[in-house]
Amino acid sequence: MRAEAAYAELIRRTREEALLASCAELLAWDEDTYMPPAGVGHRARQQALLAGLLHERAADPRLGGLLAAVESSALVGDPDSPEAVNVREVRRLHDRQVRLPRVLVEETARVTTLAEQEWAAARRASDFARFRPWLERVVVLCRRYAEALGCGANPYDALLDQYEPGLKGEQVTDLFDALRRDLIPLANALTHAPRRPNPSLLKGTFPVEQQRAFAEATAAALGFDFRRGRLDTTTHPFFSAVGPGDVRLATRFNPDGFGDGFFATLHEAGHGLYEQGLPAEHHGTPPGEVPSLGLHESQARLWENTVGRSHSFWRYFFPRAQQAFPAALGGVAFDDFHFAVNNVEATLIRVQADEVTYNLHVLIRFELERALVEGELPVADLPGAWDEAYRHHLGLTPPDDARGCLQDGHWGAGMIGYFPTYTLGNVFAAQLFDRARIELGDMGEAFARGDFGGLLGWLSDKVYRQGGRYAAARLIERVTGAPPDHRPLVASLRRKYGALYGI
Amino acid sequence: MRAEAAYAELIRRTREEALLASCAELLAWDEDTYMPPAGVGHRARQQALLAGLLHERAADPRLGGLLAAVESSALVGDPDSPEAVNVREVRRLHDRQVRLPRVLVEETARVTTLAEQEWAAARRASDFARFRPWLERVVVLCRRYAEALGCGANPYDALLDQYEPGLKGEQVTDLFDALRRDLIPLANALTHAPRRPNPSLLKGTFPVEQQRAFAEATAAALGFDFRRGRLDTTTHPFFSAVGPGDVRLATRFNPDGFGDGFFATLHEAGHGLYEQGLPAEHHGTPPGEVPSLGLHESQARLWENTVGRSHSFWRYFFPRAQQAFPAALGGVAFDDFHFAVNNVEATLIRVQADEVTYNLHVLIRFELERALVEGELPVADLPGAWDEAYRHHLGLTPPDDARGCLQDGHWGAGMIGYFPTYTLGNVFAAQLFDRARIELGDMGEAFARGDFGGLLGWLSDKVYRQGGRYAAARLIERVTGAPPDHRPLVASLRRKYGALYGI
Repeated sequence: MRAEAAYAELIRRTREEALLASCAELLAWDEDTYMPPAGVGHRARQQALLAGLLHERAADPRLGGLLAAVESSALVGDPDSPEAVNVREVRRLHDRQVRLPRVLVEETARVTTLAEQEWAAARRASDFARFRPWLERVVVLCRRYAEALGCGANPYDALLDQYEPGLKGEQVTDLFDALRRDLIPLANALTHAPRRPNPSLLKGTFPVEQQRAFAEATAAALGFDFRRGRLDTTTHPFFSAVGPGDVRLATRFNPDGFGDGFFATLHEAGHGLYEQGLPAEHHGTPPGEVPSLGLHESQARLWENTVGRSHSFWRYFFPRAQQAFPAALGGVAFDDFHFAVNNVEATLIRVQADEVTYNLHVLIRFELERALVEGELPVADLPGAWDEAYRHHLGLTPPDDARGCLQDGHWGAGMIGYFPTYTLGNVFAAQLFDRARIELGDMGEAFARGDFGGLLGWLSDKVYRQGGRYAAARLIERVTGAPPDHRPLVASLRRKYGALYGI
Repeated sequence: MRAEAAYAELIRRTREEALLASCAELLAWDEDTYMPPAGVGHRARQQALLAGLLHERAADPRLGGLLAAVESSALVGDPDSPEAVNVREVRRLHDRQVRLPRVLVEETARVTTLAEQEWAAARRASDFARFRPWLERVVVLCRRYAEALGCGANPYDALLDQYEPGLKGEQVTDLFDALRRDLIPLANALTHAPRRPNPSLLKGTFPVEQQRAFAEATAAALGFDFRRGRLDTTTHPFFSAVGPGDVRLATRFNPDGFGDGFFATLHEAGHGLYEQGLPAEHHGTPPGEVPSLGLHESQARLWENTVGRSHSFWRYFFPRAQQAFPAALGGVAFDDFHFAVNNVEATLIRVQADEVTYNLHVLIRFELERALVEGELPVADLPGAWDEAYRHHLGLTPPDDARGCLQDGHWGAGMIGYFPTYTLGNVFAAQLFDRARIELGDMGEAFARGDFGGLLGWLSDKVYRQGGRYAAARLIERVTGAPPDHRPLVASLRRKYGALYGI
């Protein structure tokens, strides 16, 4: 077959596979939003079937033949062309899938669908014992994945690679060692700073419907297009990219406080902005996709924190928040409010953590999940190990499982190896924002006018519209001029919080 | 292959096909509830892919081979056994699918997904011109279906057969001729009766959230299990059976009136009770499915009208309705309320029509859709023909397209041939309820106590748990002792409305 014809067929198959995968994506969205409780058994069978069909397509030897017919042709001469990116990524995914037995793929889809619902029920009941057998199954399946993928002594690397292609556990360890060295002293200094915020300003009566309207209006003001997306509520915030005109955010609101729901929504809106900014002409193929979860999280964390906790952001939104919540915020001074949304304090819940201590939460999960997969930590010992890690790193002991090892849904959903991408996201976000400031100048006055178009345009141009053309590290280097580096993150946290807390 | 092995493989394939079809069902549910507007293009591609995959499976020659290996075996000796039902129905569907080109099936899925959304937009704008090109495409596709299925001179029969296997257009004509003869004089007599209800009692302030809560509580009291289902709002009420533990109702509420949303919810809950009552052990195969849409509608219409507009039903629910809507219903007398929910009056909207005139609305749609498919009525002439039919049969002229030919979503969704099943449902419902009364005695006192378990148990036993074992006409005859017959419907309407209106 001529290379052009093989390539055309390769693309046709890739798009069809993506289309089928997007059906599974909608089913997964529904699982976490509207599915009735008794629907889970059938849903697990649906997901297993779709996972099996997807695996069959991705591992099809004919796909290997098409790849071989294109790989040495002139079509892929420019390594950054869409053709080369497609062939490189489809090859990578094909080689991965051929190593996985279909029955393992189906079983994993089935078990993780059930396990995620069991996790949600166990979390509501704050009962780890209920979740434990499910997590045990998930860990066994993850080990079988790693084994099938053949990562030898480092099974965790095979899992990490699903979310952050090419990243190794050892690199993550190095990154966390460096961050730990810098961030624990910073967190301590801030905790004992002469000036401290009053976080109770964010507590009070915040009717959920108003929170929802306010969060939606904010996401829209940042640029999230609700004609091409929506916002729902759920147990654990997430986003879901169903199709090019269909990007969904899910969040949760707490009627007694403002911060959690609002920042969770901004976080998911950041993911959503990235998805809505991808090059539509490449939809359904790797050049139309986000190349790494670390990059994806960088946009969630950038909009949530770098933008969403900035002084200029709140110059625009605080009066609007006061209008939306007159009872709770009517009498609060602007600077006190802004200080409160930047409260640095050791806490129990990752998604509520401040920017400085956040990475310690991730570090704990990284170490625990690696120990689970590598067999050093039996699932039964997880609650104890979790609590011990929180005492050690944050000086706190969770009072129950819901605020301990049951707080996050990732493991139930089978996503072991995902957590490090949050910290990678923080690292990338700091590098990207520093660069944006160099190229665009200070954006504070624009933010204070409610104008986020300059930053969004820059990110769209430099990151979103690049799709999957470059691997994450290469994209960061191309855009910022430097390889991935944790120091800009540390520097930005020291700068911002040093000024705020007067240290 | 031995018959047993062939049968086992046949069932495995049938279940897998049903599982894949249920993914398309969830996508369709989402289209009409939560999908963002710009998601429709991608959704149409998803539905086309799934339709193509389903067609490929159903038309697979290997399936024909499996059928042949079982059809003459002892396995299917008893024609009412699950084995025989499976083989008979899978054969019927296989023979149908092999006649349809895959490209037609895919194109129909794609176009009807888009057309349904265009219908909803056109209805909102009350603009038939917007919908017209889409309906034209749908009609062409339906003709191509009929042609491929080879129904010769009666293309409409091929469409009807999709919803009501075996039913012919001529039988529907005869049924409507008989009903027209009996019901038009009855409707006229009631319209000019000495006693008339005051339907304005049902207008007023009915906050949507309270309506929703009240409708949900009522559906639950009838027996709909919300652990295995849910209720959402939509443009046009519908139900969706995603899986054995996942049956979804969708309705719409009007904040200025009570009846529409409430009875639409009861109607969909009737469908839902049937789906929740099917034999779970046969799920995913014909013995686990409702055998005809006429039977399905019989349960919607029975719970909506025969039960839901009865005196004893409201003896239980009226005080609850007064509590839920004190401003609007606090001062209304019970008998006036009950009379108002049984107002017989020529109106423009089918789903709001009373029991007596309802079948005239269906008759109009039947005649028009047959004329569309058979080429006697160009789509461009539909609004005029619609208005003319309403003037002729109901003495009313729709003031706009939204209250005229755009009111129902069926045609946009490709469901030409569906409408007659509503009237068939009314016919079956009357026969079944008459029989239930013979076997159970008068249920009025039970209903007045909020106890619907006797009727539900009887219907579950006689109808729901029978699944697809018997074709519709045969089930009716087995349960009631008589073949399908419109006279019990006419008699029950004369009896009930004669007494109420004093004629």
